[in-house]
Amino acid sequence: MVCNCSHSAKQDESGAAKLPESESDSLILSDDPNHPANLICELCKNFYVNGWVTGTGGGVSIRDGDKVFIAPSGVQKERMLPENIFVMSLNSKKYLREPISLKPSSCTPLFLASYDLRGSGGCIHTHSQNAVMCTLLFDDVFEISHVEQIKAIPRITEAGYLNYNDKLVIPIIENTNFEQDLEDPLKEIIKKYPGTTAVLVRRHGIYVWGETVWKAKIYNEAIDYLLELAVKMKLHGIPTVK
Amino acid sequence: MVCNCSHSAKQDESGAAKLPESESDSLILSDDPNHPANLICELCKNFYVNGWVTGTGGGVSIRDGDKVFIAPSGVQKERMLPENIFVMSLNSKKYLREPISLKPSSCTPLFLASYDLRGSGGCIHTHSQNAVMCTLLFDDVFEISHVEQIKAIPRITEAGYLNYNDKLVIPIIENTNFEQDLEDPLKEIIKKYPGTTAVLVRRHGIYVWGETVWKAKIYNEAIDYLLELAVKMKLHGIPTVK
Amino acid sequence: MVCNCSHSAKQDESGAAKLPESESDSLILSDDPNHPANLICELCKNFYVNGWVTGTGGGVSIRDGDKVFIAPSGVQKERMLPENIFVMSLNSKKYLREPISLKPSSCTPLFLASYDLRGSGGCIHTHSQNAVMCTLLFDDVFEISHVEQIKAIPRITEAGYLNYNDKLVIPIIENTNFEQDLEDPLKEIIKKYPGTTAVLVRRHGIYVWGETVWKAKIYNEAIDYLLELAVKMKLHGIPTVK
Amino acid sequence: MVCNCSHSAKQDESGAAKLPESESDSLILSDDPNHPANLICELCKNFYVNGWVTGTGGGVSIRDGDKVFIAPSGVQKERMLPENIFVMSLNSKKYLREPISLKPSSCTPLFLASYDLRGSGGCIHTHSQNAVMCTLLFDDVFEISHVEQIKAIPRITEAGYLNYNDKLVIPIIENTNFEQDLEDPLKEIIKKYPGTTAVLVRRHGIYVWGETVWKAKIYNEAIDYLLELAVKMKLHGIPTVK
Repeated sequence: MVCNCSHSAKQDESGAAKLPESESDSLILSDDPNHPANLICELCKNFYVNGWVTGTGGGVSIRDGDKVFIAPSGVQKERMLPENIFVMSLNSKKYLREPISLKPSSCTPLFLASYDLRGSGGCIHTHSQNAVMCTLLFDDVFEISHVEQIKAIPRITEAGYLNYNDKLVIPIIENTNFEQDLEDPLKEIIKKYPGTTAVLVRRHGIYVWGETVWKAKIYNEAIDYLLELAVKMKLHGIPTVK
Repeated sequence: MVCNCSHSAKQDESGAAKLPESESDSLILSDDPNHPANLICELCKNFYVNGWVTGTGGGVSIRDGDKVFIAPSGVQKERMLPENIFVMSLNSKKYLREPISLKPSSCTPLFLASYDLRGSGGCIHTHSQNAVMCTLLFDDVFEISHVEQIKAIPRITEAGYLNYNDKLVIPIIENTNFEQDLEDPLKEIIKKYPGTTAVLVRRHGIYVWGETVWKAKIYNEAIDYLLELAVKMKLHGIPTVK
Repeated sequence: MVCNCSHSAKQDESGAAKLPESESDSLILSDDPNHPANLICELCKNFYVNGWVTGTGGGVSIRDGDKVFIAPSGVQKERMLPENIFVMSLNSKKYLREPISLKPSSCTPLFLASYDLRGSGGCIHTHSQNAVMCTLLFDDVFEISHVEQIKAIPRITEAGYLNYNDKLVIPIIENTNFEQDLEDPLKEIIKKYPGTTAVLVRRHGIYVWGETVWKAKIYNEAIDYLLELAVKMKLHGIPTVK
Repeated sequence: MVCNCSHSAKQDESGAAKLPESESDSLILSDDPNHPANLICELCKNFYVNGWVTGTGGGVSIRDGDKVFIAPSGVQKERMLPENIFVMSLNSKKYLREPISLKPSSCTPLFLASYDLRGSGGCIHTHSQNAVMCTLLFDDVFEISHVEQIKAIPRITEAGYLNYNDKLVIPIIENTNFEQDLEDPLKEIIKKYPGTTAVLVRRHGIYVWGETVWKAKIYNEAIDYLLELAVKMKLHGIPTVK
């Protein structure tokens, strides 16, 4: 999963043209704050302040048409720069841009799963402690009902959003030693729960995606709110489902 | 409750003149940081940092004479701009300004209730977890006494503020599936508790209003402080009323 | 305690000259970020972010020679401006500067107690929830020992600071309905505990002072850290004194 | 441990040339935000916001070749300036730069231990409450396993990082009345645990180091995340090791 290929502008084995880093800068440099490379940096700072991606944990990816923008691995999220961002073609799964001496997020195959299986426009992965705690307090699925914030979560399999008194169900998959080994279980659970916009990973964190990266961000905030509330409810002995 | 009407400058059915968005900009564009449209944006950012309006939850409204300024629905609170703000005439209940492709906050009828029934100058709605937790830990009303911060809460039915040893009582109404269905219960409870400046909504959040938006903000901060303290007291087995 | 006197530049009853607000601006306007009027505003913002002075609770005062600078009452701490600051002569207890339409902090007599009885250079009052919780979890005094942070607290009655294994003791006085009624109990307890640099007020908050406002700030941070830790220790069933 | 020597540019007893403060400014003044003196200030602000170094607690040091940069003692971390930074020669243990009227961090011998025994490039000391709580909830060592964030912690005795299902073990040493008395126990425990990149000090805090200061920062964030999670797991009755 780690990219160690050279960065010269040669045809790679598959024949795809890869630009040298300097030429590929046009893919990630823009004055528009809403350009995906800028947005990823803004979101990473926001998530750092929320404690969701400390210690270089977690990651963010945005899809713009065929182009997938991916935060690098191992870079401090609050110090990330547009020039650190990887760009991949979703169709060919080839990198269009690879920053020298960086590796793409090890979550890349998992981000791609949300694009390939759901056509999403953005995917967020955090190590939120609320998420980890809920995977310790719940078994196969996280469940909560009768909380207003549930209305921010989409139905997916049909138009619109959940009702206040609907039960939000988020599946929990088991963690693996290597992040790439999560790819198959994640794909399976996405297919098994066609109505979910998120998957919890036991003792690890959460993946949340949406039609756009903004939707993904809003869903992630709303879900984290519900996970946090659930931990408090458990501490006070209040059941999360009425 | 959602506004889908067209945005041309025609006379509407009631005869009120509605400006096209470009002309109505004068209602919301100002260099004065204390202009309601600027204040709403500032307050939404403040509330976002406090975790009260994450995931597009909650809302803020300010009344300036007959003009009611209302934050839109579904916009991320920390990224809100003055041009996103709706303006309504309190008297006619007609929109004077409707940003294209946005919907007014679904809390609008509830904000209006505080203007119509109490003549307030600002109304705040949050999804504060302290508020939600207290609606799970208390029955019909939230009650706390003998805490200094209580002195920040107004008496309403007479001049002045509560004493330290007074009991603050905030009524709790049941949540409904649709926000507009909260309008009647909210109006009823406001009439039933003439001395309250806030209403809790079970498993949902809180509405707080005041003579001005600044008063509403201060009351909201003081009440949230007391709700947070009450949750901690319950966890440590300390009664909230002496 | 509330100042409602007129703001004209007349001789007042005691014969002290009082400047009109415009002339007295020289007392509070300065480009030096370390000028007391600027520092009070900076500290109030810092305390607001820490949740110690939300809802206009709490206050700060700085003494510079005979001049005592006092934050006003009822102003939102994160929006305070130098022109909102009161200035009093410690010796005559007369105001040298009174902003029109504001009232000095109701804590003023309590700030003065730390200047008169201890010769301190700054005094901080917060409604910290850690302070309030500790007054609910402890009886006459708050006590903690064997925590490194205790070494930040001065001995007062002799040179130097507490040792790691010393017991920090902070007296708790009962709250009163009116802040001015706290003056006598506070003075008594300051005399009874000559080694304390802080006094807790039951169900209210804490007063902390120091040789300079910076010392007061550091002591306040260190004490609040210890109060927060003590609440957690109690929750986990760990005694705060070995 | 406290430096009270004079600041004139004389040969000191050991013959090392010491520059007067003005000339030694070249050691700490730089436009490069990544210069160690600038980084220490940036990190101290970051740690202050995280609540790890309030009340002047904690400290940071960076090594650049033979030069060791050390934050001063007693300065508020969020207000630290490059001119407050001490510089020492690691080889000679002589100060190359000593700011007038400041004392070097009392943690200096402990920072040096990580440089001398491990060749680290940066060392962080915090009074994190999560660290202190874990020293109260664990005996000789802090232990946690099966959490994804563990993968951010290096193996040290061999290349690479811990696996998700490895057990992270951080030794705990007893606190002493004087910080310099921690030097010998710290050196002993570093030798006894050749695979650790951190040492907890009972009722005090934590020391974390790394190949570079950025590695140290990342390790510190990841470890603090795990300490925080462990406290929550204990509160909910969940064992930290499977």
